[in-house]
Amino acid sequence: MSIITIVGSGMMGSAMSVPAADNGHQIRLVGTPLDREIIASVQKNRYHPRLDFTLPEAVQAYQIEQLQEVLPGSDLLIGGISSFGIKWFEEQVLPLLPDRLPVLLVTKGLEAQPDGNLLPFPLAIGSRLAQPRPLHAIGGPCTSYELIRRQHTAVAFCGSDLELLQWQRKLLATEYYHVRCTTDVKGLECAVALKNAYALAVTMAVGMTERQHGIDCPEFYNPAAALFGQSVREMGRLIRLLGGQPDCISYAAGDLYVTVYGGRTRKLGRLLGRGLSFQEAKKELADVTLESVAIVSSTAQALRQQAASGRVRLEDYPLLMMLDAIINHQAEVQVPWDRFGE
Amino acid sequence: MSIITIVGSGMMGSAMSVPAADNGHQIRLVGTPLDREIIASVQKNRYHPRLDFTLPEAVQAYQIEQLQEVLPGSDLLIGGISSFGIKWFEEQVLPLLPDRLPVLLVTKGLEAQPDGNLLPFPLAIGSRLAQPRPLHAIGGPCTSYELIRRQHTAVAFCGSDLELLQWQRKLLATEYYHVRCTTDVKGLECAVALKNAYALAVTMAVGMTERQHGIDCPEFYNPAAALFGQSVREMGRLIRLLGGQPDCISYAAGDLYVTVYGGRTRKLGRLLGRGLSFQEAKKELADVTLESVAIVSSTAQALRQQAASGRVRLEDYPLLMMLDAIINHQAEVQVPWDRFGE
Repeated sequence: MSIITIVGSGMMGSAMSVPAADNGHQIRLVGTPLDREIIASVQKNRYHPRLDFTLPEAVQAYQIEQLQEVLPGSDLLIGGISSFGIKWFEEQVLPLLPDRLPVLLVTKGLEAQPDGNLLPFPLAIGSRLAQPRPLHAIGGPCTSYELIRRQHTAVAFCGSDLELLQWQRKLLATEYYHVRCTTDVKGLECAVALKNAYALAVTMAVGMTERQHGIDCPEFYNPAAALFGQSVREMGRLIRLLGGQPDCISYAAGDLYVTVYGGRTRKLGRLLGRGLSFQEAKKELADVTLESVAIVSSTAQALRQQAASGRVRLEDYPLLMMLDAIINHQAEVQVPWDRFGE
Repeated sequence: MSIITIVGSGMMGSAMSVPAADNGHQIRLVGTPLDREIIASVQKNRYHPRLDFTLPEAVQAYQIEQLQEVLPGSDLLIGGISSFGIKWFEEQVLPLLPDRLPVLLVTKGLEAQPDGNLLPFPLAIGSRLAQPRPLHAIGGPCTSYELIRRQHTAVAFCGSDLELLQWQRKLLATEYYHVRCTTDVKGLECAVALKNAYALAVTMAVGMTERQHGIDCPEFYNPAAALFGQSVREMGRLIRLLGGQPDCISYAAGDLYVTVYGGRTRKLGRLLGRGLSFQEAKKELADVTLESVAIVSSTAQALRQQAASGRVRLEDYPLLMMLDAIINHQAEVQVPWDRFGE
């Protein structure tokens, strides 16, 4: 039995308590300042309102002010924050942690570097740490509401220390939560971050069909499949460009497959495909913050910077540049079908 | 205006008449001996019963006995047969064709070679021709019923003669039918043949969920996404093993995406996932012949043969070997989740 502290009680962070509890561990779930109501509810009767699910008995919930209380004795800290909370996590949480406490992040995202490179969070944050510490991350297709229902889920843990990764796998892997370990941090993290961007492109096909044939039309798959294939092509190029191994395209593809089925990214892609401008679509979605939008913008900006110095050709990324044009330059949807496969 | 002769009036062969007609060509649609009723119907009022669709006015239909009548003047011959008809096409049709008539196949499949290699049909057949002739093929995600509805569709034409491929693209590409040309025959054809095998594995997830949660349960995506990712990984390995370029994984992924949504392969995968044996599932599907089953068997056999001589490791293909065990060795579904990513 180990003690696993999860900081961030959003859907994915909280869902990690299920495999952890199934393996007999104690879980200390600490909310961020944005999670007050969730934590209050879990403290009352273990009910998680956003997951609509009663968390395991092994879960104890704490408000953020109690973080320092719960750290002693913790064997592993899971960072359960989204990419929008990663700066807070780096500045407010990491400095409080005991030196040797390993950290495993569920956060997906790439940080733009001054030279036009993009670094996965564990590497970007790791490079700034005064005191080096193992920063690992989880990638792969996993929706929280299926994880809590113990559906078969295959993910990878990545980081520099393979032995430590394998120990973390031992803590968390179950008969339904399948974990691979890899030291290819760039490959895995680029793959799972980029799929959010490209899911926007694939789901546009749904909206385009609705625009053409009416909202109740049968779903067509040829256009989405064309966009899916081109997404895999561009993600493969980006993974190599950013220093990852080619095999990580399999994580990107599997993760893209699950992301296009639901959630806010699909809603946004569908609205854009119907012909709404990005501003109109954002209004319709009540201005929710979307990781897909952030990753499109940072990747496009990095590519432009690298293209300016002749290191990449923007023509190799027609879908990403289309997404950037829609999101950041008020462009209409204009799928560059005939440039696919170039 | 050119004259395009299509041999084989199944769904995909016949659907090719739509972009051809939209480009102003005359189409001579010749049925195989199995297509008599379809041809009779098209001759009567251009109605194609299996597509439930009235073919363009530019289509003239002919029974197989009229093949030699319609060949003179033809500029291009499209082979619209399935892999089960390819031997017939090679033996009965190819020898009748004028020497310089280019052939473009919609057929997907790999032919086992005595040395344990697998060759795409255009290369396997091409190597046996007494008189060399350009044999080209179409690959990529394209369902016939969406093509006839002019949905955006992105495919590739492959063959050895790039100039001839580009001329064929000019004949057939439209504002909705997008065509790339590639000389990577092995890569493209392996990709689009293999996706039929792996679609069986991905769709098993649907049946497994139904078995666990009942037939009316919501669909879960984590298991299918895990299978999808592993499929992409194994297809990538197979494409390289069989001599294709890595970029073709994007065709395999896009094509897998569309194939898991519907059709007979999904039906079979679902039944197997529910726990039916292959024999029981085949009976339920009224013994339809499935390209997915054929490609699983021939690929597994080739891998075993290559493994015996130390050229591959069967452990690198756990999903394919699972499919082979179910189809050819009466095994139950036992997904090797923990071997994914190895």
